[in-house]
Amino acid sequence: MNRRFICCTSKLLQFTHRNASTQSQGSPSWPRKIFSGVQPTGALHIGNYLGAIKRWVDLQNAGEDVTYCIVDLHSITLPQDPEVLRQNSLQMAATLLACGIDPSKATLFLQSGVPQHAELSWILGCMTTMARLTHLAQYKEKSGKLKEVPLGLYIYPVLQAADIMLYKATHVPVGEDQIQHLQMAQSLARAFNNRFGTTFPSCHPIISDDTSCRVKSLRDPTKKMSKSDPDPKACIMLTDSPKAIIEKLKKSVTDFTSEVTFDPESRPGVANLITIHSLVSGSTPQQICEAAKGLNTGQYKQHVADAVVEHLNPIRDNIERYMADPDYLAGVIEEGCERAKAIAEKTLIEVKDKVGMNGFSLARTQRLLNEMKGK
Amino acid sequence: MNRRFICCTSKLLQFTHRNASTQSQGSPSWPRKIFSGVQPTGALHIGNYLGAIKRWVDLQNAGEDVTYCIVDLHSITLPQDPEVLRQNSLQMAATLLACGIDPSKATLFLQSGVPQHAELSWILGCMTTMARLTHLAQYKEKSGKLKEVPLGLYIYPVLQAADIMLYKATHVPVGEDQIQHLQMAQSLARAFNNRFGTTFPSCHPIISDDTSCRVKSLRDPTKKMSKSDPDPKACIMLTDSPKAIIEKLKKSVTDFTSEVTFDPESRPGVANLITIHSLVSGSTPQQICEAAKGLNTGQYKQHVADAVVEHLNPIRDNIERYMADPDYLAGVIEEGCERAKAIAEKTLIEVKDKVGMNGFSLARTQRLLNEMKGK
Repeated sequence: MNRRFICCTSKLLQFTHRNASTQSQGSPSWPRKIFSGVQPTGALHIGNYLGAIKRWVDLQNAGEDVTYCIVDLHSITLPQDPEVLRQNSLQMAATLLACGIDPSKATLFLQSGVPQHAELSWILGCMTTMARLTHLAQYKEKSGKLKEVPLGLYIYPVLQAADIMLYKATHVPVGEDQIQHLQMAQSLARAFNNRFGTTFPSCHPIISDDTSCRVKSLRDPTKKMSKSDPDPKACIMLTDSPKAIIEKLKKSVTDFTSEVTFDPESRPGVANLITIHSLVSGSTPQQICEAAKGLNTGQYKQHVADAVVEHLNPIRDNIERYMADPDYLAGVIEEGCERAKAIAEKTLIEVKDKVGMNGFSLARTQRLLNEMKGK
Repeated sequence: MNRRFICCTSKLLQFTHRNASTQSQGSPSWPRKIFSGVQPTGALHIGNYLGAIKRWVDLQNAGEDVTYCIVDLHSITLPQDPEVLRQNSLQMAATLLACGIDPSKATLFLQSGVPQHAELSWILGCMTTMARLTHLAQYKEKSGKLKEVPLGLYIYPVLQAADIMLYKATHVPVGEDQIQHLQMAQSLARAFNNRFGTTFPSCHPIISDDTSCRVKSLRDPTKKMSKSDPDPKACIMLTDSPKAIIEKLKKSVTDFTSEVTFDPESRPGVANLITIHSLVSGSTPQQICEAAKGLNTGQYKQHVADAVVEHLNPIRDNIERYMADPDYLAGVIEEGCERAKAIAEKTLIEVKDKVGMNGFSLARTQRLLNEMKGK
């Protein structure tokens, strides 16, 4: 499977290969398995798509063993409107399928549909010290803004560790802001293995060191693109109409230089357009600049818009099609949950056995064995 | 069921009746249900038995709807040896059955066998503020002694709330040290109901206001009887041989007054013996003192020992019998888990529905309904 993977030539796959060789030194016996999760936030913007979901699809299509989870247990760490959460979960499933996640190749499921996530999270929580959690940067940042800190915000890195460890994942595509949490999963795996015998692989990040993956705001290219930006023109949603996409890209902030050059430092606005263009077209920024010779940035924006519209058209159509068929979505997610549960159950039986929580099932097993002997 | 209950005359049942009437004012629509849990600590001492387990048996035999849980998920909030935890769980099941818990009347199960405990705990954890947990007295006390505080020690009151709420229990027999935790379950039930509509009853404590339930150390009657007392003579275990029981009671610390009088304040040692005697025999302390007229405390100790040995003999025999039959224990616990799970699952479906975690099952339900219509 690794070989098939490293035959691919995209930047993503090159650095993944680098990670893969690191892994094979450390724990050659663990089969390579990829896990990642996304919160059911409803619609995605092009930054989420190009920076995360498209990578998920690439990994899937490279023949990797991939498990992707819609992490609704994480969503409720901050208050949610139930109707919105429900709708957002459906929309996230529709979006992932529309982006190319293929249930015949990937296990796609809903976290709350697999009870073992919460169960393993409890067990791992008992092996975590409070000091460890208090020092995590994301906790400090998120809790600092709140008057009353919900417990979920403090303990969710433990649930994240459980998410990964339940499937014995060896690799996790993550953003840089999640590296600390992945380290926590690594140290919990190590702690469990040291205390109860080898059970979990060490889990390695797949981080894109390709800065192109960071799509910026169209209105302020020094900031990340964000759905919560007060200016709706800052952000292209996957569900935007072609007209809206063209409008947003035309009004995107660039600079006073007319030429099209790729210089993220001094020309972040134009570089952001080239990045988006590059990711949707598959051309490199260099190829794009070459082809755009003689165009001014105003004219070039139309080219980018055409490419984005062309790339997003089938995705938007598919999202609509899937959203009109919640029964199909339910079927996919249900099947995904069953598949995930089959693995999660196996892991949890092993964990409970090692922790000493299976006194009765042991006796039961003994009885069944005796019965079998008697026959 | 209430009526049957309040016909009984023991002190325990009188105050339970008082609690019951409080409850009927607040939430008349909730059927009276009793839940309680015990950690799998292995063997119990006579203080645990008389103060807690005997009350469980009384409630069961009064025809109450009782659910009793061996809470192994709570045990692991502090490090456990897996083999010991496994053995202790089996021994706790054997002990509860030997003390009179009857699986045909009570639901007796193992917490880790019902995944919904951890699941509901996660959901409730997202509704708990950190400040709320930090201020709990037990947390302050337990964490103060530790250099590194495991997360489990901080969050277990949330799991306790889940334990109770999962079965929509209206009453919980607790020790006074657990009142704060019960209040936390009450406030979580209230918070959930306020936000998502009435789902959980308010849960009331059944506290024995009968001080007789607090059995003291035989070596220092100002302290509670404890298994972890460095002096093994301080504590009568349910598994102690008659010889050991007689020995321990003979060497129990009393005072220099010869008469047998019940005065817990000034004569705690003798009062402790009378308390134990009263609880195992069913006589009141007054009746006991009356009958002991003319005996000195040395002679009286022999009477207490006889009564205790007589009461504990069948229990000890039964513990041995059950421990020799782990298959039977496994069967009982497995059946208990199935019964508990049937209720827990129903509650969790309702909770997930209200929280908004059932987008896909709703769609699924819709599909099933449509299919049924089509037929």
